[in-house]
Amino acid sequence: MSDMVLRSDTDGIATLTLNDPDTLNSLSDAMLAALSRALADIAESDARVVILRAEGKAFCAGHNLREMQAMRQAEDGGAARFADLFDRCAAVMAQITQLPQPVIAQVHALATAAGCQLVATCDMAVAAESARFGVNGVNIGLFCSTPMVALTRNIPRKHAMEMLTTGTFIDAARAAGLGLVNRAVPDGALEEETHALAATVASKLSRAVRIGKGAFHAQADLPVAEAYALARDAMVANLSEADTAEGIQTFLEKRAPGWTQ
Amino acid sequence: MSDMVLRSDTDGIATLTLNDPDTLNSLSDAMLAALSRALADIAESDARVVILRAEGKAFCAGHNLREMQAMRQAEDGGAARFADLFDRCAAVMAQITQLPQPVIAQVHALATAAGCQLVATCDMAVAAESARFGVNGVNIGLFCSTPMVALTRNIPRKHAMEMLTTGTFIDAARAAGLGLVNRAVPDGALEEETHALAATVASKLSRAVRIGKGAFHAQADLPVAEAYALARDAMVANLSEADTAEGIQTFLEKRAPGWTQ
Amino acid sequence: MSDMVLRSDTDGIATLTLNDPDTLNSLSDAMLAALSRALADIAESDARVVILRAEGKAFCAGHNLREMQAMRQAEDGGAARFADLFDRCAAVMAQITQLPQPVIAQVHALATAAGCQLVATCDMAVAAESARFGVNGVNIGLFCSTPMVALTRNIPRKHAMEMLTTGTFIDAARAAGLGLVNRAVPDGALEEETHALAATVASKLSRAVRIGKGAFHAQADLPVAEAYALARDAMVANLSEADTAEGIQTFLEKRAPGWTQ
Repeated sequence: MSDMVLRSDTDGIATLTLNDPDTLNSLSDAMLAALSRALADIAESDARVVILRAEGKAFCAGHNLREMQAMRQAEDGGAARFADLFDRCAAVMAQITQLPQPVIAQVHALATAAGCQLVATCDMAVAAESARFGVNGVNIGLFCSTPMVALTRNIPRKHAMEMLTTGTFIDAARAAGLGLVNRAVPDGALEEETHALAATVASKLSRAVRIGKGAFHAQADLPVAEAYALARDAMVANLSEADTAEGIQTFLEKRAPGWTQ
Repeated sequence: MSDMVLRSDTDGIATLTLNDPDTLNSLSDAMLAALSRALADIAESDARVVILRAEGKAFCAGHNLREMQAMRQAEDGGAARFADLFDRCAAVMAQITQLPQPVIAQVHALATAAGCQLVATCDMAVAAESARFGVNGVNIGLFCSTPMVALTRNIPRKHAMEMLTTGTFIDAARAAGLGLVNRAVPDGALEEETHALAATVASKLSRAVRIGKGAFHAQADLPVAEAYALARDAMVANLSEADTAEGIQTFLEKRAPGWTQ
Repeated sequence: MSDMVLRSDTDGIATLTLNDPDTLNSLSDAMLAALSRALADIAESDARVVILRAEGKAFCAGHNLREMQAMRQAEDGGAARFADLFDRCAAVMAQITQLPQPVIAQVHALATAAGCQLVATCDMAVAAESARFGVNGVNIGLFCSTPMVALTRNIPRKHAMEMLTTGTFIDAARAAGLGLVNRAVPDGALEEETHALAATVASKLSRAVRIGKGAFHAQADLPVAEAYALARDAMVANLSEADTAEGIQTFLEKRAPGWTQ
């Protein structure tokens, strides 16, 4: 794995660390590629849950503006390369959603623009109380249209519109109130609280969590009847697992479960 | 009506009581059938609003796990019967949504898994302060994929994901804050407060409420332009009611309305 | 412009004032026509943002019931004219959504029925603390089915259902908590706070805001992959603006931007 994204695994928890503090972990070409590879590796691994954290003075400050400005040297002024960049970025976001394992963002300091999109895209997020969130591209003349896709699927639309059109930052408590993160915790407890959440998820039957996460995103935008048909199939698949049969039986018999995975 | 689901009617309010306290009002085959019949009867009645409450130590603890484990004796390991069970359960949920009358859940103690789905599916819900809510199947290896369909249409998605992947319970105040219930009330006031809400709904023109509830669910997932076309037709139908003409006229003349129903 | 809707422009902020206090700014035929013309004019203007406010004892009390009752004289009892009225009203709502500029409702006193729909439809809203909101048509036998379309796209569905079926009013603080307005401010600060929000939006690159607002509504109801494709195109278009290239460059060089518009 590249140094851009570090990975460590303990007790079924895969921790990915964005490691380009000099650019505030910007989603550069190299970072997107490294993150994509890391996620692809995790998809094939037996990790049960993922923590996405970052090194340095920001969680993630969005796209790499220097690289983007350099793209303007192309004959078309950069249009094709810009389109390709946003497609690659959206593909990484889709990888997170489609990853078999739940992904928890551990957010410190600052998550802006595509960095805020990254938080919005993760399945869950824990934020340090001092963390701030913004889709502030509008402040330099670039409305955060792609971060908006993830943001508007997390928070009420008038609040999303205000963040997008004013570039105003919100703090972690507000982000929790709006649904952008699950909760704000004291800065000193960020790692511990995120790990505790991950450990709880990791303690569940992994196959059940994987089936459930997949169904979660697959049904989210479907008409209710179609959503139920999909969820029914997920339940039937889940029930076919031997460990689920065992889990239910031990519950009925008030014994402790003896799951193998 | 079966003893599984009791019904009493007063002043236009039909009260359904889940009455299988020994299984914590589990949604067994018998309970689903009884609830389905009770809803079908109410659909044909002149009841104006429905309260759904329960007897015993829980509002509803979800599917009947003993019955489900017995289904595994089938040649296919239970797959066909499981699929049928979830289809029947989803059909009851659809009956609630499609019922002409609004349905208000009166939730005490515990609503878990498909019991939480039932609360999420009702049009409104009042909860006792001590009530707790969970989609905790993951704790025994069965991710609550079908309850998820209703839950994710009630509360922000990161909070839904946390409840689903951790099995954590939330209390009534939190449920109100997230939108799963309308409000939390002191335990001793639960029946009174639920009845007051139902009585308010029952005091409105029943035909208007029926038209409106139908339009509510029909338009919820449509594109805005299609939703407006549907709502326009609902308004025109509502305005064709003589009692509505009378209601508007008395309002304009500052008289009290003389509705016949 | 008709006296029904007044317009004044300062510093890129177009302020529209509903000016029919005798009917509590009801959305009469004349008001809808005047508002539609005013919005069409603004769409063609170089205004950067719009404030929608109102004169008199209410922001807007919904449809004009006297006009509606008169429509009943038609041979069909008014059905065709009612349908036409709701189509014209929905068309004005669509004009607000499709307007290039963000529209901010400045809400005082009362916003009821289609007046509440108007608030829900605006891109943002600031409310005086004393303002109240209701979709209270049910109180006179007419369920607010068309206002419901906008309301249910702003607030959680159980709370929407309660407002619609009970006709109960909520105050500004509650409206802010539910997402119907961005915030509640002291009555004496309403104009100042709304203006400050508008001025912030007006200070951004207008072309970026226009592209972004268009993309916001276009992607809102799309499947995520389609939403990203649309947002990508919006980003590429935004990046092709010379002022955006300048904005990014000045940010990278830590200079102040020299935008021409």
